[in-house]
Amino acid sequence: MSSALTSLPAWRSLAEHRRTRAFELRELFAADPARFHKFTISHGELLLDFSKHYLDDRTLKLLVALADARGLREWIAKLVTGERINVTENRPALHTALRSTRPVLLDGRDITRDVVRVRAQMRRFSDELRGGVLKGATGQAFTDVINIGIGGSDLGPALAVDALAPYTARRPRVHFMSNVDGAHVDATLSALDPKTTLAIVVSKTFTTQETLTNAQSVRTWLENTVGKGSGKHFAAVTANVKAAHGFGIDDERIFEFWDWVGGRYSMWSAVGLPIAVAAGMDAFEAMCEGAREMDEHFTTAPFEANMPVILALLGVWYVDFFGRTAHAVLPYDMRLARFPDYLQQLEMESNGKRVTREGEALDYDTCPVVWGSPGTNGQHAFYQMLHQGTQVVPADFVVCAKPHHALAAHHRILLANCYAQSEAMMRGKTAEEARAELQAQGLSATEIARLTPHKVFPGNRPSSTIVLDSLTPRALGALIALYEHKVFTQSVIWGINAFDQWGVELGKKLADRILPELAENAPIGSHDSSTRGLIEYTRSKRSNEESK
Amino acid sequence: MSSALTSLPAWRSLAEHRRTRAFELRELFAADPARFHKFTISHGELLLDFSKHYLDDRTLKLLVALADARGLREWIAKLVTGERINVTENRPALHTALRSTRPVLLDGRDITRDVVRVRAQMRRFSDELRGGVLKGATGQAFTDVINIGIGGSDLGPALAVDALAPYTARRPRVHFMSNVDGAHVDATLSALDPKTTLAIVVSKTFTTQETLTNAQSVRTWLENTVGKGSGKHFAAVTANVKAAHGFGIDDERIFEFWDWVGGRYSMWSAVGLPIAVAAGMDAFEAMCEGAREMDEHFTTAPFEANMPVILALLGVWYVDFFGRTAHAVLPYDMRLARFPDYLQQLEMESNGKRVTREGEALDYDTCPVVWGSPGTNGQHAFYQMLHQGTQVVPADFVVCAKPHHALAAHHRILLANCYAQSEAMMRGKTAEEARAELQAQGLSATEIARLTPHKVFPGNRPSSTIVLDSLTPRALGALIALYEHKVFTQSVIWGINAFDQWGVELGKKLADRILPELAENAPIGSHDSSTRGLIEYTRSKRSNEESK
Repeated sequence: MSSALTSLPAWRSLAEHRRTRAFELRELFAADPARFHKFTISHGELLLDFSKHYLDDRTLKLLVALADARGLREWIAKLVTGERINVTENRPALHTALRSTRPVLLDGRDITRDVVRVRAQMRRFSDELRGGVLKGATGQAFTDVINIGIGGSDLGPALAVDALAPYTARRPRVHFMSNVDGAHVDATLSALDPKTTLAIVVSKTFTTQETLTNAQSVRTWLENTVGKGSGKHFAAVTANVKAAHGFGIDDERIFEFWDWVGGRYSMWSAVGLPIAVAAGMDAFEAMCEGAREMDEHFTTAPFEANMPVILALLGVWYVDFFGRTAHAVLPYDMRLARFPDYLQQLEMESNGKRVTREGEALDYDTCPVVWGSPGTNGQHAFYQMLHQGTQVVPADFVVCAKPHHALAAHHRILLANCYAQSEAMMRGKTAEEARAELQAQGLSATEIARLTPHKVFPGNRPSSTIVLDSLTPRALGALIALYEHKVFTQSVIWGINAFDQWGVELGKKLADRILPELAENAPIGSHDSSTRGLIEYTRSKRSNEESK
Repeated sequence: MSSALTSLPAWRSLAEHRRTRAFELRELFAADPARFHKFTISHGELLLDFSKHYLDDRTLKLLVALADARGLREWIAKLVTGERINVTENRPALHTALRSTRPVLLDGRDITRDVVRVRAQMRRFSDELRGGVLKGATGQAFTDVINIGIGGSDLGPALAVDALAPYTARRPRVHFMSNVDGAHVDATLSALDPKTTLAIVVSKTFTTQETLTNAQSVRTWLENTVGKGSGKHFAAVTANVKAAHGFGIDDERIFEFWDWVGGRYSMWSAVGLPIAVAAGMDAFEAMCEGAREMDEHFTTAPFEANMPVILALLGVWYVDFFGRTAHAVLPYDMRLARFPDYLQQLEMESNGKRVTREGEALDYDTCPVVWGSPGTNGQHAFYQMLHQGTQVVPADFVVCAKPHHALAAHHRILLANCYAQSEAMMRGKTAEEARAELQAQGLSATEIARLTPHKVFPGNRPSSTIVLDSLTPRALGALIALYEHKVFTQSVIWGINAFDQWGVELGKKLADRILPELAENAPIGSHDSSTRGLIEYTRSKRSNEESK
């Protein structure tokens, strides 16, 4: 029995197309000199080249038909108008409202007025912090700001602060403390002076265990030096204002965000405060503007010329029709080093699901493993496998036409490598080509025969290339919104809820059970022998230490 | 037609075993209370728990039989005695000789004498650098050291310097410059003073484009301040001493390593110099000692109790008999944040191959995508997909029983989360369990019916847990050697050469072609329309800029 998706005519046509059409990229390019122009989309400061994919006119038509058959147009409208499309949590997903220039009504109320209010508060605070107007308990200006948050309260802001380094003031420096690992706390605090350090505690619920544990330890560290005045060294970003009060943070230091903002879509809200602190509120607003431009493109462009829709459909094409289980993200930009990490949450937490919105188990695959690291570094690490491994991994290359630095030769080498890699993945190298090369090197026939198979590249490995004019706040905002909408589009095709994350609950619950059991002599409840064995082993190691 | 591997009786027995045996982890644990003790191995400062795997006594026996049938014992002997097992490059792979306490003969010569000599040179240099004895051109001691290297000349040392932070002196600080991206150069240099900065240029061939380009820009930066005396601000680690000379580096500043050390296995050679500079030569030698202990375990322990062999066989089991294409590495330790990156090179560059040593195309899969990031961070990012995605991803958890910091509560939470995650992946949550929970929360029958499927965790997701006593240099060395030997074992099972990397050549070559074509008005050679289109688009963006 087939699901609603796999029994669709559009799906079946794609399956048939996949079975009957050979997708040889070299041949596709040879057959059509206009292929690049046909399969590129440019919008704002971004270009998407999707010509190096298993795709012809008919494929594109069928993929778009699938999007139509799944009601994507209607779903986009539901998204941006605030329907409660996060059905399991009965909430809308209104990150687009955070960057909207038009009113967005939720239960009859224009929520963009709240957005404007908090933005004004962010501007005041970040201006004062950057200007040295804001002072700590000892009357000194702040030199350092720690963002204490994890997941959606960490990855987006950390990405943007890295990416916008050329826009960033020397002071205050912004640090990110996410992991509950004491080593992260230690490493962060050891370089800082409590008298001139301010901490922003970021948690939607203000109950996140890692964040609150870290905030508590930072408070202790502050109080050891500045005493009771440590309140002046805190701000909070939360949907739970009351709890932030309870932690002892003043009203004007509490930045609200709302139920209708999902954690992994929250960097456009006050969660973006560290971005404003580092790069300035103008830069933050330019980011939002870039995202808004992508929202407009997403909501208005025809699907065959719609960047997020195309990226999404290609993803579905590889996952469900070619059995591809991984997707590489390869930014040729060191300032986007965290982009793969950011996308891991955005994509895998949103679409790493196995039931439909209505709770039926799927008979098709959803989100692949999303991974990668910056080129050229990756070339010297895992590209061997991308080129000559047994598994084909579709990839997104991301690169900027113009750098912010003055090292032109470096940038040219970077670009040449980026384009050469997608060319190499696509073309490969045939046995004939490998043999000719070895002959040219003057090797003996025996040597040539021996080495040739090792020098063959199967090629036909697909990739997209996204070129940003340059890594401006605006381009960065557009790039991130591009992937947000890609992920949403895929969730619509797959019929899943991209906005809940029930898969994180069980581990949290079991951790709460194990935590007291790690104490010396505490009773250990019922576990499998492995979990029990690990608890006992760890306890024995610690008591060894203590008895030494 | 089957290959030598897939036609082996041992392989066929495994295939049969896989077909006829259900591997339900909950049941396996219920059936055998001694499962943890049966399927753990402890050696030195490491414990490996492999009980949460699709494995029973028979599986283990069959996997070991496969290793025997592939002659693993003999291959290990070939590895450590320096046979030229890197057949395509006609070289041995003697990283074990770098940490051996016994003579290792290569062409009749004891190469460990060279190792000892270079170690003495490293000690002298790192002692002098750390002690402030070594001075730059202006007579000042060095406050900062930049390691300029990429791939194997970057990932291992960067991992170790992070991991050994508690052992690290305040001065000199060690920085890593790897990417040819000018942003990496800019970001690194902007915080440094040329008068007190020393650069170590690390490249086996001393021709690596990224490294030499970066070294050249660092030299310019140094010369702008210290003039002709910039030679005093350089050291080199290379197998091409002549080229390092040519760059203007003095003899006593050139640290040799050798043809018989593979780049991704080179951190035990002088490539480890930044480790010695940061954490001291004693720490570096303790790391080597830990690796040596793992070498001994690998070469002597019976396969069924041999950590690297077990990790390797489990990997083969999942890739080739369960069709698993990804493997997650989840260090619950912020100081091991770079461990997944390190393993990406070690595993994917070694075993991302598609032909046998003899050049036959494989009829089975090899290296999966290796990826991950530190817990607890990953829990708030991609674990949703690990728990409830459609794809099963086997995982390695790595955690330390004891931390170096004094934040005991943090460490307990970290441990509880680590163990809870592997428990959750293994157990899952059935519909009955989910329903009971929702009932206990007092939800209506309709709500319960609606939410239950979203709260189900399929479970039965396998993982290993590696517990280090604590993140000492010795334990770190053993951990890295564990994976080196895992990778080698897999290459023996798969019949591939783990020590070449022909897959990186094509991209380099094509980049050399594209590089001049990026210049304004330069002729563009023959490319597919995508590659040509990208080159032209980039040029147009830059000339737009210039004409503004």
